[in-house]
Amino acid sequence: MGKFLFTGAQILALDPERPDYFTGDLLIEGDRITAIREEAGLIERQRADRVIEGRDLLLMPGMINTHGHAAMTLLRGYADDLPLKEWLEEKIWPVEENLDGDDIYWGTLLAICEMLKGGTTTFTDMYFFMDRAAEAAADGKIRAVLSRGLVGLGDSGGEALQEAASFQKEWHGAADGRISVTYGPHAPYTCPPDYLRRVMEEAAKTKSPLQIHLAETAHEVEECRRDYGCTPVEHLQQLGLFEHRVIAAHCVHLSDEDIAILGANRVGVAHNPGSNLKLGSGIAPVARLLEAGVPVGLGTDGAASNNNLDLLEEMRLAALLAKGSACDPTLVPAKRALQMATVNGAELLGLSDVGLLKEGFKADLIAFNLKAPQATPFFDPLAHVVYAAAAADIRFVIVDGEILVEDGCLTKLDEEKIIAESSRRAERLTGRSVLRT
Amino acid sequence: MGKFLFTGAQILALDPERPDYFTGDLLIEGDRITAIREEAGLIERQRADRVIEGRDLLLMPGMINTHGHAAMTLLRGYADDLPLKEWLEEKIWPVEENLDGDDIYWGTLLAICEMLKGGTTTFTDMYFFMDRAAEAAADGKIRAVLSRGLVGLGDSGGEALQEAASFQKEWHGAADGRISVTYGPHAPYTCPPDYLRRVMEEAAKTKSPLQIHLAETAHEVEECRRDYGCTPVEHLQQLGLFEHRVIAAHCVHLSDEDIAILGANRVGVAHNPGSNLKLGSGIAPVARLLEAGVPVGLGTDGAASNNNLDLLEEMRLAALLAKGSACDPTLVPAKRALQMATVNGAELLGLSDVGLLKEGFKADLIAFNLKAPQATPFFDPLAHVVYAAAAADIRFVIVDGEILVEDGCLTKLDEEKIIAESSRRAERLTGRSVLRT
Repeated sequence: MGKFLFTGAQILALDPERPDYFTGDLLIEGDRITAIREEAGLIERQRADRVIEGRDLLLMPGMINTHGHAAMTLLRGYADDLPLKEWLEEKIWPVEENLDGDDIYWGTLLAICEMLKGGTTTFTDMYFFMDRAAEAAADGKIRAVLSRGLVGLGDSGGEALQEAASFQKEWHGAADGRISVTYGPHAPYTCPPDYLRRVMEEAAKTKSPLQIHLAETAHEVEECRRDYGCTPVEHLQQLGLFEHRVIAAHCVHLSDEDIAILGANRVGVAHNPGSNLKLGSGIAPVARLLEAGVPVGLGTDGAASNNNLDLLEEMRLAALLAKGSACDPTLVPAKRALQMATVNGAELLGLSDVGLLKEGFKADLIAFNLKAPQATPFFDPLAHVVYAAAAADIRFVIVDGEILVEDGCLTKLDEEKIIAESSRRAERLTGRSVLRT
Repeated sequence: MGKFLFTGAQILALDPERPDYFTGDLLIEGDRITAIREEAGLIERQRADRVIEGRDLLLMPGMINTHGHAAMTLLRGYADDLPLKEWLEEKIWPVEENLDGDDIYWGTLLAICEMLKGGTTTFTDMYFFMDRAAEAAADGKIRAVLSRGLVGLGDSGGEALQEAASFQKEWHGAADGRISVTYGPHAPYTCPPDYLRRVMEEAAKTKSPLQIHLAETAHEVEECRRDYGCTPVEHLQQLGLFEHRVIAAHCVHLSDEDIAILGANRVGVAHNPGSNLKLGSGIAPVARLLEAGVPVGLGTDGAASNNNLDLLEEMRLAALLAKGSACDPTLVPAKRALQMATVNGAELLGLSDVGLLKEGFKADLIAFNLKAPQATPFFDPLAHVVYAAAAADIRFVIVDGEILVEDGCLTKLDEEKIIAESSRRAERLTGRSVLRT
């Protein structure tokens, strides 16, 4: 870590106390942003070890991926365009049964390579062998919010919950505080009420947030009505889940009453527009959720149903789908979409010092190259990032004050090795040859 | 032009006579593809002036943008998230009135830079000062299908039609055949029946296709019902427009009867999912159009309503929206989406020797870099391109046998100069300063 000064850059701070954008300077010392000025050249160059000329750069907070299953990168492109039941039961689940800890480590590292290069500085994960995912996050120098996925249907629910508790104890706050641990009850339909009560009890001991899949498909809502006589959202409310901090992934199929419940309880929603479209789940009512005061963040979901981890793409989709599905171009304007990808994501995950460019906040930020046809003419930084920019335009990615991507290349990870190792593992898991190793 | 051999590349030919993908060789001689082999190393290296190792490359046909207004790049990011009427009447139209021929030349060149780098090898344009757009297309070495936009409401309709006829005479088949000219009556609501009849009569003289905006918004359909007692599609059918080759852009709001009419008349539809979402127009019923036998291509529309010209993004959106809006993940599978972006686009535009990788076809093709996290594991080239790849992954773009993009950089155009000139012109047109020149 060092002292870096960006000078004369376009800055999109997303700090409500500042203008939407300005040309200025930003200083990083150690893991923190220590100075921001709304004019170029006001921070002395001597304060930094390295000065980066900002003329062609747009700085903004690193993006926050609020829902995913990182190691599922190993199943990218393995099964697409199939009916959901066939996809899950015949393709995904059988392969997941053969995953081992090393698969999780390498699959998660592969995901981290892609996420960092695409401007994601914090990711959220719910999967298995989470100690190995945490190791990958620690080695990858990224910020992570991790949970051991918990399913309470078979005999292994109790054991998984014990694992989750040990994982919390060992990893929460690890890697210089970059890793947080939450509890991950998979979904209302895989966690019966008694099991959910046990999970809540365990999570309450450490005041840990809960992550859960919720109201993802119409089928889930139907089954819940059949089994419990109410919607999944009502069901969780009745169980008292929303008395905890909850990050609910998907929330595609919601009644007006559901939306009101989520708003009244400030339940965080992780919106995954790409995955919801690709799996044919539907289009979440994001504009209505925002109107009801629900904090909405963005997620990529796993690469088996996306098929990339490009959060910029999800941000664009979130804005476009809200407008297009309601035939109203004023819904989810660029600034709102940017907030969802950054500061709202941080709020959802309970991270209080990332998601904005602000003095005293963690130095988690990204810089876009503006010397490109798609950035011309450069009238509006907000519209540029949300509607025109691409992941490959990102030149710098900084997490906790460390430059992890420079000129679009990873500085700390051996991408070639990670690609080779992941390909090998994907072949073993699926029994299928990759076309390029 | 020379002789280029790609050897041992992944090839996604989209030729129904070949497998969906294979590892093999592809030879270009002059402006044509002259040999393809479904095994690596079968074409002798001596036949080429230059051999390109294909180990990390995926070759496919160049993409075909079937609808747009290229020079509107000058208005990118100038006005976003506004109600349609305000956006058009207060922002776009007043600026368009001040466009001059040089603006069109530079704005179109800017669009060409972006389209080429994003893998588009043919674009379609409907705008003003089309001789200058044609000049830009000729200088940019890209393939283009151009039409002078025709509005029949004021006094200038007759003059515009004369211009269109001269433009056809002068430019159709120009630039080694890379430029085709069509007639561009803007829309049913801007071209009264008598004017449309005059346009058809003129177009018939040269058997030129017609491009028209159709059923883009619910408002347009309402107005047509009020004015003519039928839908816009029925209205054009009654006028005999569909007896010509027609490329109808948008087609968002269609009745079952409309879809049947488009299918029965083989009217080509240019689907612009990004623009339709961003302007709040809605979601076109693409899966149903395809089922009815309508040839559907993809378009970006202008950069003022998109805000980029990334056809890969439109292809992904087309596949995802079809699935998500109908809650059916099997709709518009990857191969179908790829065909829309390539061979179906060619069919729509009446281009008989592009859109496939096939011996004897024009050498219009692109090559993706596969050495990337988002291409790992590499199981399925079709799913990779449609669901995971990014424009910046494109390493080579070849049009008419000339390499126009290599390692992601333009080889023939002075990008820096085009960016500077376009920014200056955008400032003059809008009266607003750009933040980076």
